[in-house]
Amino acid sequence: MNWLRPLAAWGCRVPFGAQHLAPSCALRAFAAHPQNQVAEGVVKLQQPKAQLGTDEGKKNFILKTPKGTRDYSPKQMAIREKVFNTIISCFKRHGAEVIDTPVFELKETLMGKYGEDSKLIYDLKDQGGELLSLRYDLTVPFARYLAMNKITNIKRYHIAKVYRRDNPAMTRGRYREFYQCDFDIAGHFDPMIPDAECLKIVHEILSMLQLGDFLIKINDRRILNGMFAVCGIPDSLFHSTCSTVDKLNKATWEDVKNEMVGEKGLLPEAADRIGEYVRLHAGGLGLIEQLLQDPKLSQNKLAREGLGDMKLLFEYLTLFGIADKISFDLSLARGLDYYTGVIYEAILLQPQNARREEPVNMGSVAGGGRYDELVGMFDPKGRKVPCVGVSIGIERIFSIMEQEVEASKEKIRTTETQVLVATPQKNFLDVRLNLISELWDSGIKAEMLYKKNPKLLNQLQYCEDTGIPLAAIIGEQELKDGVVKLRVVASREEVDIPREKLAEEIRRRLES
Amino acid sequence: MNWLRPLAAWGCRVPFGAQHLAPSCALRAFAAHPQNQVAEGVVKLQQPKAQLGTDEGKKNFILKTPKGTRDYSPKQMAIREKVFNTIISCFKRHGAEVIDTPVFELKETLMGKYGEDSKLIYDLKDQGGELLSLRYDLTVPFARYLAMNKITNIKRYHIAKVYRRDNPAMTRGRYREFYQCDFDIAGHFDPMIPDAECLKIVHEILSMLQLGDFLIKINDRRILNGMFAVCGIPDSLFHSTCSTVDKLNKATWEDVKNEMVGEKGLLPEAADRIGEYVRLHAGGLGLIEQLLQDPKLSQNKLAREGLGDMKLLFEYLTLFGIADKISFDLSLARGLDYYTGVIYEAILLQPQNARREEPVNMGSVAGGGRYDELVGMFDPKGRKVPCVGVSIGIERIFSIMEQEVEASKEKIRTTETQVLVATPQKNFLDVRLNLISELWDSGIKAEMLYKKNPKLLNQLQYCEDTGIPLAAIIGEQELKDGVVKLRVVASREEVDIPREKLAEEIRRRLES
Repeated sequence: MNWLRPLAAWGCRVPFGAQHLAPSCALRAFAAHPQNQVAEGVVKLQQPKAQLGTDEGKKNFILKTPKGTRDYSPKQMAIREKVFNTIISCFKRHGAEVIDTPVFELKETLMGKYGEDSKLIYDLKDQGGELLSLRYDLTVPFARYLAMNKITNIKRYHIAKVYRRDNPAMTRGRYREFYQCDFDIAGHFDPMIPDAECLKIVHEILSMLQLGDFLIKINDRRILNGMFAVCGIPDSLFHSTCSTVDKLNKATWEDVKNEMVGEKGLLPEAADRIGEYVRLHAGGLGLIEQLLQDPKLSQNKLAREGLGDMKLLFEYLTLFGIADKISFDLSLARGLDYYTGVIYEAILLQPQNARREEPVNMGSVAGGGRYDELVGMFDPKGRKVPCVGVSIGIERIFSIMEQEVEASKEKIRTTETQVLVATPQKNFLDVRLNLISELWDSGIKAEMLYKKNPKLLNQLQYCEDTGIPLAAIIGEQELKDGVVKLRVVASREEVDIPREKLAEEIRRRLES
Repeated sequence: MNWLRPLAAWGCRVPFGAQHLAPSCALRAFAAHPQNQVAEGVVKLQQPKAQLGTDEGKKNFILKTPKGTRDYSPKQMAIREKVFNTIISCFKRHGAEVIDTPVFELKETLMGKYGEDSKLIYDLKDQGGELLSLRYDLTVPFARYLAMNKITNIKRYHIAKVYRRDNPAMTRGRYREFYQCDFDIAGHFDPMIPDAECLKIVHEILSMLQLGDFLIKINDRRILNGMFAVCGIPDSLFHSTCSTVDKLNKATWEDVKNEMVGEKGLLPEAADRIGEYVRLHAGGLGLIEQLLQDPKLSQNKLAREGLGDMKLLFEYLTLFGIADKISFDLSLARGLDYYTGVIYEAILLQPQNARREEPVNMGSVAGGGRYDELVGMFDPKGRKVPCVGVSIGIERIFSIMEQEVEASKEKIRTTETQVLVATPQKNFLDVRLNLISELWDSGIKAEMLYKKNPKLLNQLQYCEDTGIPLAAIIGEQELKDGVVKLRVVASREEVDIPREKLAEEIRRRLES
């Protein structure tokens, strides 16, 4: 008995903000193509999940990856590496170092950092010894690393997987294991210079990935808090009001207001006052000036500070030539508890081109902000290290690029092999082994078929299937003459090359 | 209150075989240098582990990474990336694709694959839903991937962290989170061709890493099993006898014999017969021929098969020009249950050079073998996919290279920054922001100090400290003239470059 199961658990996640609303599923289209999983030309994928039978005394267990996780096939890895290379080259262009931390932390390290999202943390079983949890993001481990090593000044990136047990009822189809690509600047510096650089980085990465038009929304926690204060919200409700405002990009103002008044206990008039402010968005310097003149907001110290820094930030963004992609948006709140200053979130505005057949939900692909208090939470004396950073949401970008590759029928190579060592002759395995060894030792990327006597046709077909551009063919005559027949697979052109010049010739042809 | 804790939990692990004997500690010397952890020029490491005080109402928790894990500082990452690049370039030279799998698997996927080592598996807490475990190696997830996707033919590499809850009493100082770099060839092929390629890969990697002289021991499970059979060991004791023989490289024959007779219940005469065989090592073709003539062993079908293949393997290794580093060794057994044919293990023979001050225990740095039954364990119909592979043990290689860097006082750069944008002028932040933005957009790796008015001396000192080779200095006069003063940090030579040619000039200087 052996029946097939659908791919129900596959899909997308909403990486930034708005975690508590139903996600619109960017990956659904991709999930409909399970054959995406396997490299072309290697094998055919039948079905990724099959239930094992009991006929051989095996237990009746399901052959699958854990819920919310996936394997990456060679083809998916090729796309993933392309995206990573773009991101890493940008981080390095900005002078970042790189660190790595363990996949799990002491449970206590993560406690009290994520508010109500803490319930999404994966704990390890107590097998004796320390209580451990899988990391939920890269920011808290970074803060722990700084405090533990008493580092007060660093610019680093970190690319790694993080883990969130999204509640299945709300999050069907989100990944529970996913990548974050984080860039952060820690240290005491003059205002808004590192903050502006983080936004420049988002701009560079989204431009280079060619994902189409995008917009970076920015706001400041101090402006939000000032706004809440002048609207008459008590301090104790700032955090929960913040997370309700955060839903504005997915829900109507009416729904948000209902939640504020009905669930969070705000007065309707207070909610209405907030409503007037948060509908002020898509602004730039003009909006900042307007709010600085606002009779109530301008009386609030926090709001004035935030607005002053926002103005400075826009000056720097203008010097960087990216202000046109930045929108000051009073409705942007972002969920996480630890932000203390500027916050931002990048969204894609439209599909890049018309080739894409199925509509893609364009959502948030990057987010971040300033968190000046987090390191101090770990320091025994509470010493603060101001930090600002950005996290690029890779899964959504992957899924968009995968769909593009799929739609374009572009053939992606999953190896870099330059030449196949082949022969038309029987019993020439030893000659092939000898020749391929010479090529490897000269740094040439070479393969051969693992058969004693493969047919020449099969060898050339393998080149076609896997995209190997050259074949180095050696037979009786070539061996005698000390040459190798170098064949260009695409054009079928063949030329004899002296054996000792072969590596050099391959390199010359593939680098020109 | 804030006291310091020693680094007791740090140290090495024995990555291949011999897991149940006291490890000789390759990392101990490194552990004595906790300052290795932090990048030079960023901050000074005080002590990596300090206990938090209670003075601010915080709980009394310890600021550390979980037992058996560590952070990687930027300096350690620079070494790690160098090692990875060498290994990946070798895997790609041999035409491998790359895959990735989740960090955890269904608990059932791992069950019954590791014999008594299963107790070292990390389980996740049951928070509702599936029972999960962290991966113990990359081989079982690979076999699960092949079976799940019905792949019968692939050559892939996979570099990722694996997790083992080593019993603290036996393994003090081993890492519980560590990297494996695996290369495997799956498919039905002619005998020993892929097996020989795996050994060629080990040879290439160890040669390129320049870790000093090394030896690759090989044996075959069929020869071992044949040997056990002709020595009168019952089938049921093959596995446990295997793991006892595996201890021979760390223990004397007397100790091993005592375990065989005392704990495993072998007859003393049977143990003595095994003793005669396993002391035959450091052999090559001569030893193979000798055993093929052995009156008892040559009667055993499995042993004859294994010896025949071993002979073929040596032919291929000779064609690859690496037979001199390979030693057929009847005492090599390797612990894991799933091997079915050839097995191998690479050991370093001596320190690379005299610079190293503290003696380093040179142990196993790579291991692997053939496992033809593992994929079939996951297939509902038990269909087999023969596999052979090798795993490079990166942690030991890291520690050796870290010690070398330490000993040589070689300065390792942790960024790739090409130029610092600097100014001698006050109130020139906007000019610097504008110029650095131009450089970033031209693909130049550039930094600036995040100060409104940094001193020129501090800016130049930053170049010296972090190894930035060039400074692009812009003041009133340069701005007026449309030039930038390009300074070579090492020589202090300065030359005016037209601003629009600056990126090009930086590239020209650093690429020549």
